[in-house]
Formats: sequence, C-alpha cells, structure tokens
Amino acid sequence: MNEAYLTAFRELMSMDDVLILVHRNPDGDCLGTAFALKRAFENLGRRVCVAATGTVDRNLRDITDGAEELKPTFLPSAIVSVDVATQPMLGPDLACYADTVDYNIDHHYTNTEYARNNIVFGSASSAGEVLFDLFRACDVEIDDVMAEKLYAAIAFDTGCFRYSNTTAHTHEVTAELLKYSFDAPAVIRKMFDIVPLRQLKLERVALDSLRLYHDGRVILLPITRKMLEENGAEDEDVSGMVSLIRRIEGAAVCATLKETKEGDVKVSLRSADDIFDVSAVASVFGGGGHVKASGCLIKGSMEDAEQRLLSAIEARLCGQEDGV
Amino acid sequence: MNEAYLTAFRELMSMDDVLILVHRNPDGDCLGTAFALKRAFENLGRRVCVAATGTVDRNLRDITDGAEELKPTFLPSAIVSVDVATQPMLGPDLACYADTVDYNIDHHYTNTEYARNNIVFGSASSAGEVLFDLFRACDVEIDDVMAEKLYAAIAFDTGCFRYSNTTAHTHEVTAELLKYSFDAPAVIRKMFDIVPLRQLKLERVALDSLRLYHDGRVILLPITRKMLEENGAEDEDVSGMVSLIRRIEGAAVCATLKETKEGDVKVSLRSADDIFDVSAVASVFGGGGHVKASGCLIKGSMEDAEQRLLSAIEARLCGQEDGV
Repeated sequence: MNEAYLTAFRELMSMDDVLILVHRNPDGDCLGTAFALKRAFENLGRRVCVAATGTVDRNLRDITDGAEELKPTFLPSAIVSVDVATQPMLGPDLACYADTVDYNIDHHYTNTEYARNNIVFGSASSAGEVLFDLFRACDVEIDDVMAEKLYAAIAFDTGCFRYSNTTAHTHEVTAELLKYSFDAPAVIRKMFDIVPLRQLKLERVALDSLRLYHDGRVILLPITRKMLEENGAEDEDVSGMVSLIRRIEGAAVCATLKETKEGDVKVSLRSADDIFDVSAVASVFGGGGHVKASGCLIKGSMEDAEQRLLSAIEARLCGQEDGV
Repeated sequence: MNEAYLTAFRELMSMDDVLILVHRNPDGDCLGTAFALKRAFENLGRRVCVAATGTVDRNLRDITDGAEELKPTFLPSAIVSVDVATQPMLGPDLACYADTVDYNIDHHYTNTEYARNNIVFGSASSAGEVLFDLFRACDVEIDDVMAEKLYAAIAFDTGCFRYSNTTAHTHEVTAELLKYSFDAPAVIRKMFDIVPLRQLKLERVALDSLRLYHDGRVILLPITRKMLEENGAEDEDVSGMVSLIRRIEGAAVCATLKETKEGDVKVSLRSADDIFDVSAVASVFGGGGHVKASGCLIKGSMEDAEQRLLSAIEARLCGQEDGV
C-alpha cells in the first residue's frame, strides 16, 4: 500500500474532535464506513461525529445506531470525508465544509481529490474495504462493532457480493470480518430484504404500468404520486423497484421514473447486461453514477420525462447496435 | 482434514467410468458440485456422467452445459453421490443405485452415511465448498470451468453469501475461486435474478391472495393451477415466491402452497426470524429440510391443506411463545 496514504491515515488517527462527512442521501457503504471509523476514534477516547445531508433510510438505521439525522455537534479540528467522490456530493447541509476537507477516503475512480490528503483506491469494491485495509495496515484494532459496520458497508456496495466490483480481495476482507462476532445474516436481511407490506403492494400496482420497448430490451416504470398515495407508500419504498424490473428476462436497460413532490421526475437507471452504459444516459440530464447504475433528475412532467429518457436511451442503443 | 476422507477421495479420483448422482429436483449446489467433479474426471481423460431424477430448472442450465435431463449413459464402475443426504433423496429414477453408492460427498449434518465411503462435512456451507477443499487437499488441478461451477454451487446454497451457513472459510474459498477467470456476476444473475415477465405477473396476482395471520407473523400464499394457467406461468416460476413473501416486515414464518397437477399441495416453508424451526412443521406432513427452509407435500385440497398447515404452525408458535 502507498506509503503516503498510510502516513496520512496515521495522522488522521492521531486527531481529536473529528468530523466525518458522508455523501448526501447516505447509503450503506458510506454509513458503515463512517460509523466504523467513528467507533475507532471512540475506542481511542476521542470526540467524533458523523454528518450527512438528508435522512438515513429506515433499513440503514442499525448502522447509525438508530439515528435518522446526522448533524455536526461540535467545532471540528479535523474533517474527513468517506465515500464522497466530489464536493457537490456532500449536499447543501455540508457544503460549508467542501473546501476544508483534511482527509478524503474513497473508492471511486472519479474522485476529484479535493482534500488536503486524498486516500483513494479506485479498484476497491467499497469505502468499507478501503477502511479495513487502512485499519489493518496501520494496526488500528478492530472490534466486533467495527467489523459489523464494515461488513455492512462492503455488502451494501457489492449488492451482497454479487456485483462485478466484488474481487477476490473483497472476499478475503469479508472472511477476516466474519471471524469477529456479529450476526451477518441479520445485517443483510435488515439492509436488503425486509420490506413493509405496503411496498410489495406498491410493486404490484406499479407492475401494471410497466412499459416495454424494443422487444422488452428497454423497460421503463413510471411511479406517480397517486400510486404512492393510494398504497400508503413513501418515497423510499420506490428505491428497490429498479432492481425488481432489472430481473426481467431480456432486459438490457431499465429505469424507474418517480414523480417527486415538486412535480419533477427522479430517474434511476440500471444496465441489465454488461454492455449498455447507463451513466452516459444519466449525464444527458446532468446526472451521473456508474456504468451499470446511474441516476438523474428530469424537470417537467412524467409524460415528457418518459419520452425524453426513452429518446436518450434509444440514441445510445442504436449507436451500440451499429457497433459505434 | 480427516485422513480417511482424503484416502477415499484419492481412491475416487483414480476411478474410470464414474457415475455422479445428485438429489432429485437438482439445485445449484448439487449440480455445480457434480459438474465440477465431472470436469475433473474429464480433464484426467476418464469416462464420467451425471444423473438426476427430475429436470434441471432453466436458471441452472448454464451449470449443466445446457442439459435439461441427466441420464446415466454407461454401466459405471464407480458411483459417487454429491449433496445427497439420504437414499430416498435420489428419487425414483436413481433408486436402483441407492444401495451401491461407493462414495458419498456431502455437507448435511443429517447425512445417513449410506455409502461404502462417506465424506461428510456438516459444517460446510455447501457440497461445492466440500469439493473445493477436497480438490485442494488432494492436489486435483482446478481450471476456470471447475472454478465457475464450484462458485455457482457455493453461491446457490448460501443464497449469494447471505445465509447463516456462510462462514469465514466460505469467503476464503470464494476468494480463491475468484482468482480464476469466469464471469461471476453473470453466474449469479442467471441463477438468481433473471425471471420471465410472466413470473412477475404471477407474483402480482398471487400477492392479491396473501393471507396474514397473527398480526402478520404468519404469512401463507396459496397458488392455484388457475393462477398459473391464467398467467401462462409454469411450476418452476413459483419457486422464488416464498423468498418474496419472506421479505415482508414482521413475518416470522412464511409458506407458499402450490396446487400440483395431481391436485395435492406442495408447501415451501421459510423461517424469517432466527427462532422458528420450519423443518419441524414440514416433518408433521412427512417432509423435511433445514431449520430455516423446508418443504412437504400435503395430500388433498388447497383449503384443507392451508388449514392443516396453519394449525401445525400455530402449535409450534404457541410452544415457542410459552418458552417450550
């Protein structure tokens, strides 16, 4: 491992009054990583807190020890971001810290290295995997609680070890984590499996409005406010829906289009084969993400958004078919 | 590793004309293990074939190199069973071999050791994990194809590394397998994810007939022939449905009840918490399986079967509540 990285991380671990920043709308990887790091500082008797823009989804609150909101609670002397590829990813609540990040621990190739010290492993599956390697390389003692949170982080970003970012090293790290004492299946079940009945009911209704194009290679699923309201569903109940339609045999590109409270359309895109790059489609609308999973916001009505999204997908699909 | 096991396995690997038996209605673990073993014999220039009672599910046919039916093709000089806990598990087509199995490679604690040589690791996640350890311990060379099939076996029986049978060693073995060259996400996707649209449509219809008992702690899902026929669905489309309802928040015990072509009811039971033992319920009806996943066949009408199943679940649920 890069010696400069280790020096920076050792410096970080010597700090007190540490503020840990995660990306907006925090996911399992940034939260698991942040709370494992928080625990490491606590075990050393330091003052530390985690802050985020946006609330913590219900299925991730075991990681945050129940917290739904994460706000800074003291004036920090050191600021570290985890799993935050770019400064805008901090979101409005943390924008004030964007130019003063001391340590940036991440696994995105696209990280813009905006901090004083940047520890970025583009080949790691997750920020959790990066932090485990840093802990081990710098002899930071890992306890059961930290192991559980790192396991959650890695499992989240690898889709429970199924995505192509999962490497032999990811499994080696996970093997080490499972030697600690915690209930791994319960971690997975809470993060991925448990859904309120209302969400299944929403899925049922939504499936009625499934739109198949190009012999089912393109599948769009519009989800209106009306559907949500009629099923007593919440915005977060929609998040797993794109994975559901991605499973349909023959699909190459899938997207859910969710009408927002403001009347715009939030799009989640997934590539179902290994070829179609959905981040290119998302970028047409100012969004971004990964080749296989991206998102964007399209201003305007559902009908209009659906048409524009379909056109953007088709433009790329045709290019692909022509071998461009 | 037990020296007697290694001696037996080395003896097996010296054989020619080997018949590999798997359990009836073969799953990803027995097939992945059997076809990895088959390949090992082929690489040594031996004659070998895999046989099963029942057909291979569509989502598992990459493992069997496309084969839907697995029949013996020659008179064997050695017979090995993999992932077969008891002789009846061979099913009617292979019953003729039940008393002449030479080698029995398995991971079920309940294995009855019916063979001349029994190599049973009750603590292994899967037969695939057992075979990997045997290959390594006996210096059998593993190639990319074998690695892919062993990966499929382990991933299948661990529910993609999420069930409680997944140990640190399981991840260590998987890390070794991922050092070979094959498309692991594609293996997972084909085994677990891809569903025909008709299956999603069946799910939608079935969810309308969901029965919740005891404040939603017990959830039963009856699936009639009519539902299957009206959605152009096939029997195998039902198999994932019990996992779907197991996800519902608050559920402790879930079951699908599928009306068979013969007019009886095939029950798949899952425990959603870590306490309820569904194998005890299945055994009431002459079925069996694991603590968290079991199955049985109840003779008679759907209505009657549902009532009897509910009573059996309730009897156990009450005992559990009383601390019995």
